[in-house]
Amino acid sequence: MTATHSSIEQYIPPLVRSQISARARETLSTLQKFIEEDCLPADNLFHSHFANINGKQRFQSIAPVIEPLKTKAKSLKLWNLFLSNQYEEGAGYSNLEYGLMCQLIGRSYVAAEVTNTAAPDTGNMEILAKYGSVTQKRKWLQPLLNGEIRSAFLMTEKGISSSNALNISLSCKKINDGRSLVLNGTKWFASGAGDPRCSVWLTMALTNPSAINPYHRHSIILIDSKRALATGRARIVRPLEVFGFDDAPHGHCEIVFDDLVVPLETLGSEGQGFAIIQSRLGPGRIHHCMRIIGIGEEALNQALHRAANRHIFGELFVKRESFITGFAEQRIKLERVKLLVLQAALKIDQDGVKAAKKEIALAKIDAPRTVLDIVDWAIQVFGAEGVSQDTPLTRFWIYCRMCRIADGPDEAHLNQVGKDICKDGVKRVDSLYKSIEKDTRRLQKREQKL
Amino acid sequence: MTATHSSIEQYIPPLVRSQISARARETLSTLQKFIEEDCLPADNLFHSHFANINGKQRFQSIAPVIEPLKTKAKSLKLWNLFLSNQYEEGAGYSNLEYGLMCQLIGRSYVAAEVTNTAAPDTGNMEILAKYGSVTQKRKWLQPLLNGEIRSAFLMTEKGISSSNALNISLSCKKINDGRSLVLNGTKWFASGAGDPRCSVWLTMALTNPSAINPYHRHSIILIDSKRALATGRARIVRPLEVFGFDDAPHGHCEIVFDDLVVPLETLGSEGQGFAIIQSRLGPGRIHHCMRIIGIGEEALNQALHRAANRHIFGELFVKRESFITGFAEQRIKLERVKLLVLQAALKIDQDGVKAAKKEIALAKIDAPRTVLDIVDWAIQVFGAEGVSQDTPLTRFWIYCRMCRIADGPDEAHLNQVGKDICKDGVKRVDSLYKSIEKDTRRLQKREQKL
Amino acid sequence: MTATHSSIEQYIPPLVRSQISARARETLSTLQKFIEEDCLPADNLFHSHFANINGKQRFQSIAPVIEPLKTKAKSLKLWNLFLSNQYEEGAGYSNLEYGLMCQLIGRSYVAAEVTNTAAPDTGNMEILAKYGSVTQKRKWLQPLLNGEIRSAFLMTEKGISSSNALNISLSCKKINDGRSLVLNGTKWFASGAGDPRCSVWLTMALTNPSAINPYHRHSIILIDSKRALATGRARIVRPLEVFGFDDAPHGHCEIVFDDLVVPLETLGSEGQGFAIIQSRLGPGRIHHCMRIIGIGEEALNQALHRAANRHIFGELFVKRESFITGFAEQRIKLERVKLLVLQAALKIDQDGVKAAKKEIALAKIDAPRTVLDIVDWAIQVFGAEGVSQDTPLTRFWIYCRMCRIADGPDEAHLNQVGKDICKDGVKRVDSLYKSIEKDTRRLQKREQKL
Amino acid sequence: MTATHSSIEQYIPPLVRSQISARARETLSTLQKFIEEDCLPADNLFHSHFANINGKQRFQSIAPVIEPLKTKAKSLKLWNLFLSNQYEEGAGYSNLEYGLMCQLIGRSYVAAEVTNTAAPDTGNMEILAKYGSVTQKRKWLQPLLNGEIRSAFLMTEKGISSSNALNISLSCKKINDGRSLVLNGTKWFASGAGDPRCSVWLTMALTNPSAINPYHRHSIILIDSKRALATGRARIVRPLEVFGFDDAPHGHCEIVFDDLVVPLETLGSEGQGFAIIQSRLGPGRIHHCMRIIGIGEEALNQALHRAANRHIFGELFVKRESFITGFAEQRIKLERVKLLVLQAALKIDQDGVKAAKKEIALAKIDAPRTVLDIVDWAIQVFGAEGVSQDTPLTRFWIYCRMCRIADGPDEAHLNQVGKDICKDGVKRVDSLYKSIEKDTRRLQKREQKL
Repeated sequence: MTATHSSIEQYIPPLVRSQISARARETLSTLQKFIEEDCLPADNLFHSHFANINGKQRFQSIAPVIEPLKTKAKSLKLWNLFLSNQYEEGAGYSNLEYGLMCQLIGRSYVAAEVTNTAAPDTGNMEILAKYGSVTQKRKWLQPLLNGEIRSAFLMTEKGISSSNALNISLSCKKINDGRSLVLNGTKWFASGAGDPRCSVWLTMALTNPSAINPYHRHSIILIDSKRALATGRARIVRPLEVFGFDDAPHGHCEIVFDDLVVPLETLGSEGQGFAIIQSRLGPGRIHHCMRIIGIGEEALNQALHRAANRHIFGELFVKRESFITGFAEQRIKLERVKLLVLQAALKIDQDGVKAAKKEIALAKIDAPRTVLDIVDWAIQVFGAEGVSQDTPLTRFWIYCRMCRIADGPDEAHLNQVGKDICKDGVKRVDSLYKSIEKDTRRLQKREQKL
Repeated sequence: MTATHSSIEQYIPPLVRSQISARARETLSTLQKFIEEDCLPADNLFHSHFANINGKQRFQSIAPVIEPLKTKAKSLKLWNLFLSNQYEEGAGYSNLEYGLMCQLIGRSYVAAEVTNTAAPDTGNMEILAKYGSVTQKRKWLQPLLNGEIRSAFLMTEKGISSSNALNISLSCKKINDGRSLVLNGTKWFASGAGDPRCSVWLTMALTNPSAINPYHRHSIILIDSKRALATGRARIVRPLEVFGFDDAPHGHCEIVFDDLVVPLETLGSEGQGFAIIQSRLGPGRIHHCMRIIGIGEEALNQALHRAANRHIFGELFVKRESFITGFAEQRIKLERVKLLVLQAALKIDQDGVKAAKKEIALAKIDAPRTVLDIVDWAIQVFGAEGVSQDTPLTRFWIYCRMCRIADGPDEAHLNQVGKDICKDGVKRVDSLYKSIEKDTRRLQKREQKL
Repeated sequence: MTATHSSIEQYIPPLVRSQISARARETLSTLQKFIEEDCLPADNLFHSHFANINGKQRFQSIAPVIEPLKTKAKSLKLWNLFLSNQYEEGAGYSNLEYGLMCQLIGRSYVAAEVTNTAAPDTGNMEILAKYGSVTQKRKWLQPLLNGEIRSAFLMTEKGISSSNALNISLSCKKINDGRSLVLNGTKWFASGAGDPRCSVWLTMALTNPSAINPYHRHSIILIDSKRALATGRARIVRPLEVFGFDDAPHGHCEIVFDDLVVPLETLGSEGQGFAIIQSRLGPGRIHHCMRIIGIGEEALNQALHRAANRHIFGELFVKRESFITGFAEQRIKLERVKLLVLQAALKIDQDGVKAAKKEIALAKIDAPRTVLDIVDWAIQVFGAEGVSQDTPLTRFWIYCRMCRIADGPDEAHLNQVGKDICKDGVKRVDSLYKSIEKDTRRLQKREQKL
Repeated sequence: MTATHSSIEQYIPPLVRSQISARARETLSTLQKFIEEDCLPADNLFHSHFANINGKQRFQSIAPVIEPLKTKAKSLKLWNLFLSNQYEEGAGYSNLEYGLMCQLIGRSYVAAEVTNTAAPDTGNMEILAKYGSVTQKRKWLQPLLNGEIRSAFLMTEKGISSSNALNISLSCKKINDGRSLVLNGTKWFASGAGDPRCSVWLTMALTNPSAINPYHRHSIILIDSKRALATGRARIVRPLEVFGFDDAPHGHCEIVFDDLVVPLETLGSEGQGFAIIQSRLGPGRIHHCMRIIGIGEEALNQALHRAANRHIFGELFVKRESFITGFAEQRIKLERVKLLVLQAALKIDQDGVKAAKKEIALAKIDAPRTVLDIVDWAIQVFGAEGVSQDTPLTRFWIYCRMCRIADGPDEAHLNQVGKDICKDGVKRVDSLYKSIEKDTRRLQKREQKL
């Protein structure tokens, strides 16, 4: 017997229905059941666990609910779903299909981790799979794919505009005939670096400052983080907060390098850093967006449930015109942006990441801000309880809020995609209106003859 | 040689690409060429024609550019595209496919008329095809399908809220043993009744006020309008303006019935009026919405062309950050609502009108208001010229504005669809959160055992 | 006995109450009575008059309701209220006081004309008073002040961005030893030039293109328009429409100069054109804004009246939650922007136009767009009737819409005022945060000592 | 020598300039200096202090920076400014004047506490001053006025809609011949109850459930909180978080009463609870709003400072069009809502709280949401740093966010004030349009005679 709440249909928009394989549809069903019966309940235990841990211990603890769920996800073949059908290690789903899976995963706090589809590991695994040497894959990719270790990506630097990766300036001096590097500088917002299982830092560094082509000046250094911290020359100074949340044990860390010596081990070749981070961004952004869509769905579920069980001045809240029209408005917002995101996913599947640049940008800009609005509305439905830790809504909100800034602020993307589409369009409209003018004169002449 | 502006791809969103038949794609290409090479130029002649005609003559004139284009559209098989593959008389396209055609048609003022896909004729033809007797079809449907006559639908009444069709109260007294009716009352906003070729009024009237079921009290009366006007007992009192436009010769007319005697001839049976108008609304709304999307596309084309040819304080407008980001924002808005509309079209194709009620409502609410915003932005790009008759933008704007009211105001639809989706969802979320609570307790117990 | 609707208090915000003289308050009361008992009723007759006049006759007719009201306004001392207490010819009110009067005047279509406070006459009279020679004043200012003639200001030119007055390029060749000018070029959106009583065109022209200082290249030429038209060398080519309205007999005209010879008669000295148009804009903008606020008030009155007399699905519209909260939202919007406008008026009174530049800009940007929203909401309350000519709402809307473009589009003002306030603020905040840093260190030291 | 940043003029809008006494203006200047030289620097120390304290200790610690500042504020006569000129204990400023002071206080986190103008103490002191007995004043009011103790107001209850105070149901059983009460139930969001100095809980309780008039069923019980906690029968179960912040040591507490026995000591008489909380809300809301306005000012200061010191793609951020127009937009928003709030303050001064109900509601609705938008924009200007603990922006945001819910959610106020203004207006507009209709006929007759 299937519960009334667990039909997968509501999460597959009619417009993409025919483009989902039978196998993916089955996985989606299994995943939905796993999310609703295991992950959403586990979220409660996860947060209870950390509500009682203070200070530094917050980054030394793993919630006991996690490992059993990882085992279950593996047994259900809900593991490593993220590697699209372009990777041999992958589960073989299209970006569109995996996008729909992300929608379900986004509804729960622990779901990404327990299905091994959590950022930044996914992006890191993708570039390790694509650019890593055999040794690097054995050392870092395999344990990551197995869920044995975790990883961080050290990109953003304090005091520098991260909209432009060329600004990255972590200093690297080569020593030992170029076999080692001395690192100096500060990275921050290194997400995941707080996790006690984090073992490798993929670090964007300025290895070749004198390269003529500015896009060839950076490399991704692979740093064994446990060893680096042990030297005392790399220090996690503090967890940064995001609207008061530290997201323990994951953490958004500020890391200081003070003459840290590491072997010169780059992912790909030296100077390929910029190219690698570019390729890291495509599908990942869409999966992020679909998790955000899942947040929107869950926020609406929560709001509806609340309204159906709350009286306002003697009337059930769900019966009030303001709730009803507000709910419909949120539905419109969520539905249309969901289609925008799925369109970008499908475009990647059809034509590749590069050709989908525009579609990806539109989705990346619109999903976080739209769902922020939806979550904010849901918070207002809950009143005071909505701003407290008793609902997932504030965590939803801050996640989406951060996504308006992470990987470059909305404004940077708007500007870039705006330039691209203006450029594409100018010639077209010029030709169009010239031809219309000409044809207008042609029709006028014909008319005058009559 | 194909001009740079006439690739059909830009008008087919990636998300529906694989769901368009080769035949439809070919028709779309032909149609795009016809729109750009014939219709958009013809718009200029059409408006020039009416700019010089005043007063009552405005409703006695047909622009000479029209008939040749009708002939050409017929020869290109771009005629009567609107009847979906459910009708034998139809061109055999799905709603999704015809939706994309409407997008192109919406870009031009005359295109709907010259392809015989103009409201209210399309809706009238659909119900004549579905409910008409053989005689009625011969008398009215065939000439309409041939583009020989035009028609109007007399629904809205002065002083009555049209959100609720049950309010319609045009008085009908049966005489001559029930073979004739005496009509009294006032209809207004009868669109198309101004056209000199208009020959039939489909008139919603209160024929059976004493029927117990309020949904069985109305009928659609077929009135020979030329004969009715000749008696002097039906009078077109005045054209109503929409933001200053009279939309001549089409016209939005106020019509007074003053003891007009007509034969009792209903479309379908007596008392079936309400059922018929319900069925009239489904796909038609989506086609309306897609024409509106086409308006949005054309407005963006216009704005881009303007910006690419205008200097503001020494800089090309298209190079300014405000234009660039504004353009990207409009693109996001248009793209996402387009997908929403196409989703409703596809849902109709897949599951029928009734099952697509929610999707239709979301699109009907969101398309006009979104495109209004876009057109308004484009007007602002044009400055003073934008509010004048020298661009199509003001006509675009008022068309969309009217669509926020026609067929019921946004607010009525929001309220109705909101009620529907709340009702659908309440049981589901109730079951969901009960099960989550239960599973949380299960997990807690398991954890405590460990 | 005073009617319940005619207390002036509702139109005087508490925040300015104490800053209105007793004399102004009395005038406001008289004016409100005049607006409500004479002007608003006269609007109906005015529009009926022009509804039946077509083509060119629309610009040759004066509604018979106008002159008697002018006489009455004079007798009530509601005449020429616009000249602030800086002018000896003026009625002696402050800008704040006259602003409140404009609010009342804005509610009616004819009120500005019948109180002789209509644009562009007011601005023209102001600069004639300020810069005119004795002869010019006698010839043009006096008849304008008497309401015997009307005037136009010819500024905007086709194909040129009017955000920047330096672009104005109407060609002037001096002949007759510099005593005459030959004019060539096209002006458009010359508001008021359609009026049969219009007798003088104040025309911005490029008289001194070779002046080194670009701000000294233009002059205001005073042209006897009737004489100019009689030569056939100046022609009113057509009235431009604003969203379908021609605003007859006022008109927004396109005027072509084709070797028109006129005496060289400038307002002020040659090359002073730019300076004069700058000074023309200050208080006038605020009065425009206050008339727009009056439009907002009247739109809300209309919407409330409609809702109080209309049933929606069996319930009085005014009792529905959506109307109630919508009405409150509009009230908030209108109230706060009203204060913004009045603040600019008071700032002019206190510190002069130049010092009030920022306040004027904020008001000029915000009033039209805010009231557009309010009027749009009111239209939606009315449904189909709202877009027709049967309410004043569409005229309200297009007036506000035009004001987002007239005198420079919103975007230009935002950009300019943004630059100004950034520039003002940067030094201040720099000093502030430096001092806070210093004081933080001071406090830290003190704390460490404890 | 005065620093360039410390002119008080920028914080006094021109529209109220003439309505501020010389004495208040002087206090404003002193206060601004105190805020900028002492409080804003102290904020940094305050947050550093709590960044290093974990768990329960967070509610047992007072930042050392506080007491010296309290002493300084007293010496500068910046103490207890909140009691308006209606109270003999007060500093004698009007609500308008104190409103402007709140604007300054709102810019700093510690400023309210160190000037003894922090919620909920201020509201509590006001009602103690108004309703307290001599004994109660001596016991609680005096130490509060002296800043020796702090207080909490226990209102909101879990699981009950707080929009309607009649829902409050904390159970009270009278024992000991009515001299004592037994309390049972749960209060939450009791702000300030976490502070170790908190000594008294003003507690809204259902003392007289059987009173016929529902507005007479509640009383405010004065509870000695330290004694209550000592019994173990009142327990602070946990601090609630607001978007991840616990606001230690202040705290938003959940408090459980489990057969707590207290003396029956009500503020005012039994059954007066509802009346007292009503009177508690008026001016306090406006002062809240003005602190929020101060937040908006400070957020704009911060954003401007950031933009003036940050390069984006090689250009100073403050020079980019998007920043410039964005900054101007925020200025418009902040300026207009500031005037709305000050208008409510002045209306209270002029006509009393009851007459100012509408003005208070408009301000209470609009200030938090407007400033939320402004702060959110400022966060986006800062990028990742903006969501972290390194700027005050996230604290600003959550404070405003909470204010959209505290004292009743926006929606409840909109609905209430909407009803009030609709009710007020209906008669007025009815009379207005009837009279206009009549006068229209009068004018028509006159015209026909001519």
